[in-house]
Amino acid sequence: MTRRYVEQLRDGDSLDDVYLVTDKQLRANRNGNLYVQMELRDRTGGMSARMWNAGDAVYRSFDNGDFVHADGKVQNFQGSLQIVLNHIEKVEHQKIDLHDFMPHTEHNVGKLLERLRDYLMRLNSPHLRALAECFLIDDPFMRNFSACPAGVKLHHAYVGGLLEHTVTMMDIADRLVAFYPGTDRDLLMMGVFLHDAGKTKELSYARTFGYTDEGQLVGHITIGVEMLNEMMPRVEELTGEAFPRELLIRLKHMILSHHGTLEYGSPKIPMTPEAMLLHSIDMMDTRMHMVLRDLREDRNNQTAWTPFNVTLQRRFYKGGPNGDLYADTRDSYD
Amino acid sequence: MTRRYVEQLRDGDSLDDVYLVTDKQLRANRNGNLYVQMELRDRTGGMSARMWNAGDAVYRSFDNGDFVHADGKVQNFQGSLQIVLNHIEKVEHQKIDLHDFMPHTEHNVGKLLERLRDYLMRLNSPHLRALAECFLIDDPFMRNFSACPAGVKLHHAYVGGLLEHTVTMMDIADRLVAFYPGTDRDLLMMGVFLHDAGKTKELSYARTFGYTDEGQLVGHITIGVEMLNEMMPRVEELTGEAFPRELLIRLKHMILSHHGTLEYGSPKIPMTPEAMLLHSIDMMDTRMHMVLRDLREDRNNQTAWTPFNVTLQRRFYKGGPNGDLYADTRDSYD
Amino acid sequence: MTRRYVEQLRDGDSLDDVYLVTDKQLRANRNGNLYVQMELRDRTGGMSARMWNAGDAVYRSFDNGDFVHADGKVQNFQGSLQIVLNHIEKVEHQKIDLHDFMPHTEHNVGKLLERLRDYLMRLNSPHLRALAECFLIDDPFMRNFSACPAGVKLHHAYVGGLLEHTVTMMDIADRLVAFYPGTDRDLLMMGVFLHDAGKTKELSYARTFGYTDEGQLVGHITIGVEMLNEMMPRVEELTGEAFPRELLIRLKHMILSHHGTLEYGSPKIPMTPEAMLLHSIDMMDTRMHMVLRDLREDRNNQTAWTPFNVTLQRRFYKGGPNGDLYADTRDSYD
Amino acid sequence: MTRRYVEQLRDGDSLDDVYLVTDKQLRANRNGNLYVQMELRDRTGGMSARMWNAGDAVYRSFDNGDFVHADGKVQNFQGSLQIVLNHIEKVEHQKIDLHDFMPHTEHNVGKLLERLRDYLMRLNSPHLRALAECFLIDDPFMRNFSACPAGVKLHHAYVGGLLEHTVTMMDIADRLVAFYPGTDRDLLMMGVFLHDAGKTKELSYARTFGYTDEGQLVGHITIGVEMLNEMMPRVEELTGEAFPRELLIRLKHMILSHHGTLEYGSPKIPMTPEAMLLHSIDMMDTRMHMVLRDLREDRNNQTAWTPFNVTLQRRFYKGGPNGDLYADTRDSYD
Amino acid sequence: MTRRYVEQLRDGDSLDDVYLVTDKQLRANRNGNLYVQMELRDRTGGMSARMWNAGDAVYRSFDNGDFVHADGKVQNFQGSLQIVLNHIEKVEHQKIDLHDFMPHTEHNVGKLLERLRDYLMRLNSPHLRALAECFLIDDPFMRNFSACPAGVKLHHAYVGGLLEHTVTMMDIADRLVAFYPGTDRDLLMMGVFLHDAGKTKELSYARTFGYTDEGQLVGHITIGVEMLNEMMPRVEELTGEAFPRELLIRLKHMILSHHGTLEYGSPKIPMTPEAMLLHSIDMMDTRMHMVLRDLREDRNNQTAWTPFNVTLQRRFYKGGPNGDLYADTRDSYD
Amino acid sequence: MTRRYVEQLRDGDSLDDVYLVTDKQLRANRNGNLYVQMELRDRTGGMSARMWNAGDAVYRSFDNGDFVHADGKVQNFQGSLQIVLNHIEKVEHQKIDLHDFMPHTEHNVGKLLERLRDYLMRLNSPHLRALAECFLIDDPFMRNFSACPAGVKLHHAYVGGLLEHTVTMMDIADRLVAFYPGTDRDLLMMGVFLHDAGKTKELSYARTFGYTDEGQLVGHITIGVEMLNEMMPRVEELTGEAFPRELLIRLKHMILSHHGTLEYGSPKIPMTPEAMLLHSIDMMDTRMHMVLRDLREDRNNQTAWTPFNVTLQRRFYKGGPNGDLYADTRDSYD
Repeated sequence: MTRRYVEQLRDGDSLDDVYLVTDKQLRANRNGNLYVQMELRDRTGGMSARMWNAGDAVYRSFDNGDFVHADGKVQNFQGSLQIVLNHIEKVEHQKIDLHDFMPHTEHNVGKLLERLRDYLMRLNSPHLRALAECFLIDDPFMRNFSACPAGVKLHHAYVGGLLEHTVTMMDIADRLVAFYPGTDRDLLMMGVFLHDAGKTKELSYARTFGYTDEGQLVGHITIGVEMLNEMMPRVEELTGEAFPRELLIRLKHMILSHHGTLEYGSPKIPMTPEAMLLHSIDMMDTRMHMVLRDLREDRNNQTAWTPFNVTLQRRFYKGGPNGDLYADTRDSYD
Repeated sequence: MTRRYVEQLRDGDSLDDVYLVTDKQLRANRNGNLYVQMELRDRTGGMSARMWNAGDAVYRSFDNGDFVHADGKVQNFQGSLQIVLNHIEKVEHQKIDLHDFMPHTEHNVGKLLERLRDYLMRLNSPHLRALAECFLIDDPFMRNFSACPAGVKLHHAYVGGLLEHTVTMMDIADRLVAFYPGTDRDLLMMGVFLHDAGKTKELSYARTFGYTDEGQLVGHITIGVEMLNEMMPRVEELTGEAFPRELLIRLKHMILSHHGTLEYGSPKIPMTPEAMLLHSIDMMDTRMHMVLRDLREDRNNQTAWTPFNVTLQRRFYKGGPNGDLYADTRDSYD
Repeated sequence: MTRRYVEQLRDGDSLDDVYLVTDKQLRANRNGNLYVQMELRDRTGGMSARMWNAGDAVYRSFDNGDFVHADGKVQNFQGSLQIVLNHIEKVEHQKIDLHDFMPHTEHNVGKLLERLRDYLMRLNSPHLRALAECFLIDDPFMRNFSACPAGVKLHHAYVGGLLEHTVTMMDIADRLVAFYPGTDRDLLMMGVFLHDAGKTKELSYARTFGYTDEGQLVGHITIGVEMLNEMMPRVEELTGEAFPRELLIRLKHMILSHHGTLEYGSPKIPMTPEAMLLHSIDMMDTRMHMVLRDLREDRNNQTAWTPFNVTLQRRFYKGGPNGDLYADTRDSYD
Repeated sequence: MTRRYVEQLRDGDSLDDVYLVTDKQLRANRNGNLYVQMELRDRTGGMSARMWNAGDAVYRSFDNGDFVHADGKVQNFQGSLQIVLNHIEKVEHQKIDLHDFMPHTEHNVGKLLERLRDYLMRLNSPHLRALAECFLIDDPFMRNFSACPAGVKLHHAYVGGLLEHTVTMMDIADRLVAFYPGTDRDLLMMGVFLHDAGKTKELSYARTFGYTDEGQLVGHITIGVEMLNEMMPRVEELTGEAFPRELLIRLKHMILSHHGTLEYGSPKIPMTPEAMLLHSIDMMDTRMHMVLRDLREDRNNQTAWTPFNVTLQRRFYKGGPNGDLYADTRDSYD
Repeated sequence: MTRRYVEQLRDGDSLDDVYLVTDKQLRANRNGNLYVQMELRDRTGGMSARMWNAGDAVYRSFDNGDFVHADGKVQNFQGSLQIVLNHIEKVEHQKIDLHDFMPHTEHNVGKLLERLRDYLMRLNSPHLRALAECFLIDDPFMRNFSACPAGVKLHHAYVGGLLEHTVTMMDIADRLVAFYPGTDRDLLMMGVFLHDAGKTKELSYARTFGYTDEGQLVGHITIGVEMLNEMMPRVEELTGEAFPRELLIRLKHMILSHHGTLEYGSPKIPMTPEAMLLHSIDMMDTRMHMVLRDLREDRNNQTAWTPFNVTLQRRFYKGGPNGDLYADTRDSYD
Repeated sequence: MTRRYVEQLRDGDSLDDVYLVTDKQLRANRNGNLYVQMELRDRTGGMSARMWNAGDAVYRSFDNGDFVHADGKVQNFQGSLQIVLNHIEKVEHQKIDLHDFMPHTEHNVGKLLERLRDYLMRLNSPHLRALAECFLIDDPFMRNFSACPAGVKLHHAYVGGLLEHTVTMMDIADRLVAFYPGTDRDLLMMGVFLHDAGKTKELSYARTFGYTDEGQLVGHITIGVEMLNEMMPRVEELTGEAFPRELLIRLKHMILSHHGTLEYGSPKIPMTPEAMLLHSIDMMDTRMHMVLRDLREDRNNQTAWTPFNVTLQRRFYKGGPNGDLYADTRDSYD
């Protein structure tokens, strides 16, 4: 039987499926009767659930972060849908397909990795090619790099998001570099590859998306430089030569400056053509991803505008009700 | 005989050529003897010149903005080169090749125009194609569009700069649009074409680069919208149909928002994917042009850094003395 | 029978009148019984209303934006007043006096229009007088200009607000111009008249106040310049002369710069005395309107301070409890 | 019997004690039965309380700001604790120990005052010592100075907070001044003493903490200068000499500039070494107080981070679950 | 014989008049011969002067700030006018008409004072009228108030500037207050009178314009509040009543907040209608004064724009060469 | 014979000593005669020098950065002192005492090092003590750490400045930590030690002060973290244990956040008590150093104010002419 995802649940539906539990609470109603309340989640969203007349025993039978088999019914309560549970039971993690519980890139991860390898293995600089190889054969790194989102909420916030964002940027860098002679293609491609690599340690993405403590206290920009430093001995062993110091410093500079301004957390602003182009492509791809996602995910056909995007401090224009025609009736915006 | 350009003049050179005069002054030295001082310019730069023992008659024989035939010698005076004149005489404008006196794009203007037309004539939307055609057959507009710089000082500050900047942006837009499905290629290309069209009236570029009064008081963003409005009757005559109102408003929005933020003079921020991408490409191309120009034009091999760029508030790194190697000796930066 | 406005409803009141519906919802209570909830509004405000044991049939019998005849009772529910409905029925729009449902200026619109015409018809410049006349005889424009609010929420947010704000500014300009010799009175008065004229298209104000899509994407500043351009052929026909180009550009500059700074959405800052004075009067009148409205509308006599004004980021001081005496007891502010 | 403070109340507890009432309301439930709701507070916090089936008579039997004897029971209602009251009765203020109802410094006020006097009476400058004496013998001032909090919410927000903050800063100033020769110790100590003295009139702290109207309209910085001016005649009487004008202006400057920047409400920035050091110590002590309080008061052991601090716009890191070990499992931060 | 003012001196003129000396220096030329250089000033400006072959004796015969009788000739030296002196001799201060050496308001000070008194003596509030009287009969204050400039450089930077600025603002306040019912006219007029009164002690204006040390360290905003406080005992003696506390605090608030924002040095932002209107009128009058002065004082007919105004960060548009016509030729702006 | 330092040279002095050459130029005077111009420097400053009638041979006999023996005379030329040279000759570096050519800390470096070691060797944490030891026994590091300035221009810009700044901060940290229980003394002391350690590679300080290329492109904050990482294997070897991961991350966080805000180049803001206190002490010490240096170095007794400090955007008040008395005469400030 196909799974019913949270976003598919409608008023009156029965449900009988596995969900991730968060926010469980034991409460009393006005008559003093106990009930258990929680949030049930999967990769498409979450919904509040209550089990009436359920006491301490039920409350203790599972923890936040556990998967549970839930049997109940959906109903509209004071304007929102909620689940009234008949039965709930913890399920072992190993029986779970995590794919159902985390949002994923819609691209094929294998093909993204292939494009990534392809770009990197065709670099002209033997030093940079060796550096790339050391990362590509580092299995734990590559597993994380393939799984990590590019952000917790803002953009590419799904499993594989970092890989997708990185490879798209390499595609773009590949097409743009010819317009800017004086920009070193090898450096640019390697900078794109590594600019957000520190996110593999800054973020946690095993079952939910969040920041690690190291991520909060050190940050992906510095972690990225550390990962580059740690790889140096292996690279020099591979090539049998010292890694050129200027090359290394230019790479570090690209990682450090890719947010473009101090206010956005870069301790240095771009001072080489490769750093400037890397920053420009990153900002463009990040913003375009947000705009297009807001437009694509909007389901509200009562207004020509998407919901307010807090990061970009604006709404986006979806256009008139017939798709390609301008609504001459004046719609309210705010 | 080939012309000696100002940038070619060296200590001890004789000169016997035509220059543009600016900043002429009649002065007395400490002994009370009069002399005439001025700046002689061509497209490669300017140099201070003095004619000793020259009084009112010489001073009145030409005006600022005139072209003069100058006969004299270059010498190093207190650390700077200057010209000591023997003879100076006004020359008629019609005898002058203006090419010698204004910096020009290094690209072939004819080929740039061809690419521009090519992009525009292959648009799918009949309305936008008709709009493009109306601009392309407007001879005075196209003459200005081909001559106008993209800026007075900051970037593409040369004859043909606007055309070069616009066509490069179209090349880039053409390559990027596929990465962002949901972005209308036709709208994007037309927006790129028109985003700076108002500069043809905002700037003056007949003999020197500056702002017109209209440019200062109204600005190229508003002028661009006005030019679009003025073209509408012709477009509708050409297609025999009303220009779709939504299309027109989306185009205006792209012109109005292309600086990206209010602080940079856009009265609206980008709220459509095409406006966001147009802004991103514009900022990227503008900045990359500045970086690469600073690096290319730098002649100082005493330092690894370009002169301070006031607009971008930074220097750029040229690299170590051997071009591709890092200077391990620590060079002073500031 | 006189209408009971929302702001007059008290706990225990019966009501039997027409209201505007917004936010209707069909909901279930804890026992699964359906009820219909909505907001009932008129020009004085809105109140939540519920009809218990009402299902799909009632829910579908009217839409948001409809007028309904409502029969029910007001009661205090958990600290707020709400309406419990006995009966609700849709009413045709044509039977409605819209005056009851939109807030209006307290000034006499006819007298405001008279003052406006009076100022404009006494301008000395024949060109500006002709321009004014073209606007004054444009019936659709004048209908909109008389109805449009000056803002959606911030200030003069009522029918006739734009007209009231404009005429007050002309009164002030008329009294101030003599203090600033070198300022052209005609230009100033015409600039005041047109500075917000674009709001007639930027805002929607048929039944509720909001922004049009054109308003969001283009904005009243640019629209105002477009309206001025569109009027030029008629003006030149009227005078039989070309409209002086400098005059036109100075007028556009006043419209474009009236917000005073780029951050507030003006693409140009004031660079003529008339533009500077227009901006100063606009800001003064807008702010004074907000302060005095906050003080006038405050009904809370428990505190010496108005509620927090988000736009101005402050509260205002109403003074001590006896009106004109200082409260020596120290009142809590926050 | 020992008092049960609000922070000690647990689900199921009975209570029978005196509390401060705020926010009383008379409400109806869905069945139309009346009940009285209020907040009961003491120095450790507040809790919502309801008395079911209680009407107008109960509602009118006490006012906000009164102390009441409350008899009832604590229960968990929809996830929060609340009090269900059986009986409630007003108590006279004179029978109340205010200590139970306002948070207090944990330091001994008498010892803080002793240290304050000690520092001030050992100043070398006879003028400054006389000035200090005039404040120290001003009983109403000293009573307020000992009771006043240093802030309403941000830091040292408890009775005695101002005194504690001031004396800590004097301790620090005493230890630091030797590192900065050229800094006048006497001036520094007196500046620390007086920098926030105006808070005694800016804030109200009789039963709750808030701002006085004078505090809002004039502010503690200006009030501090006024208090200094008012003391001058007494000081000069005490010493029999004019107070040196330069000394007075340097003191005023320290009070005026102690917030460090205009944006933070200082009308002058520090321009003497004493003013600069005073500002630095104030900012350091204020920030350290907030950090350490957030860490100390945090009771949530589910996360390694304190709640978001709005003033400082950050969370603080508490460390891993075992206190001194780093949590290698990656905890979600946000 | 009429005095020749510095601004009247032309190349070749002889001069024989009294000037104020600043910046005197003893120097050697390349041959080792000594000469004395200085700046000679009067109220219209300053010019560099040299006395060749003049040694220590001449150098010591006068000091900076002295008045000297100068006998010499004007000549153009390297593009600037300078004075070559034949003879120079110190003149006693008492023989000098200071009017010649400080710029003055062009208004009649007596009439300005009359208008000021007239406004103040017609206030309705007996308390405010008594306060005004106390200032008006304070001779030293009124002497300073009549002489003080309103600024050192920015606006009204001339003797009588403060008075002129204040009375103009009262004229404007008088005309505007009727438009804003709810604004107390008496408070507004008194606030205008006192808002900059502290400048009489913040600035020095005996022979040149500058800041006093007190002005730098305390500032006119705080000084103004102090002056108000100091006047209280006299006012209460005059009326025989206590000055109402709320009135006093509202007045202080107006002085404190008249710069409008913290960034501009006000420790409080306007929170009463009178404070808001005072701030708006002050900003308007200050800015209009700068614009009109820049336009009036500009003598350069080579450009349609005034010199760059650093305070306002812009140039102003003077218009085309024929005064009222637009220059269709595109003038360079920058 | 004692050396005559540049700051001791007076008009008319003969000189016969060794100086550092910078800015050498070969120039012609108005008659076409060649001369050589240069700047001669030592640790106390620089002075312009000319050798008349000196041509190519002299010009080529030494380079910028060389030490030369100079024989000549000081004279006042157009208001500034300059040196006229009779003879100039290159001197070998090995014969030079560099002490004469670089400004040095006035503290005893040996004693500073002793205090540093003392603090570090008494840390309680064995891991942090081992870490300290590894740095202390790293001779090249300690040599650089003892020589490096703390800044190029802003503060502690002299040989030994970094050590002096660091040890002063440790002294202060030592005295303050007791006031802030909950702050880890060991972490704080180690953070102070390492916070600017990256400056040893960010700056160049062999003969003049400047930035290295690595310093510009990577910055001392990131370099400091890299130095900490590089030391880890040695530390773990020394203790025979893994360095606790949380401790390492807390240390990195302190280095990364010590500038306090992103705008000042820290990629993270302080989120632990130790990081917050480190930042506060650093800012206090840096600012106090600048204030006191400006006051101490000011030699101008014509004004009560120091020269404008560009970093802090202010002047400092030196006080009246008699040192401790206020100048009642109002001095001009600007």
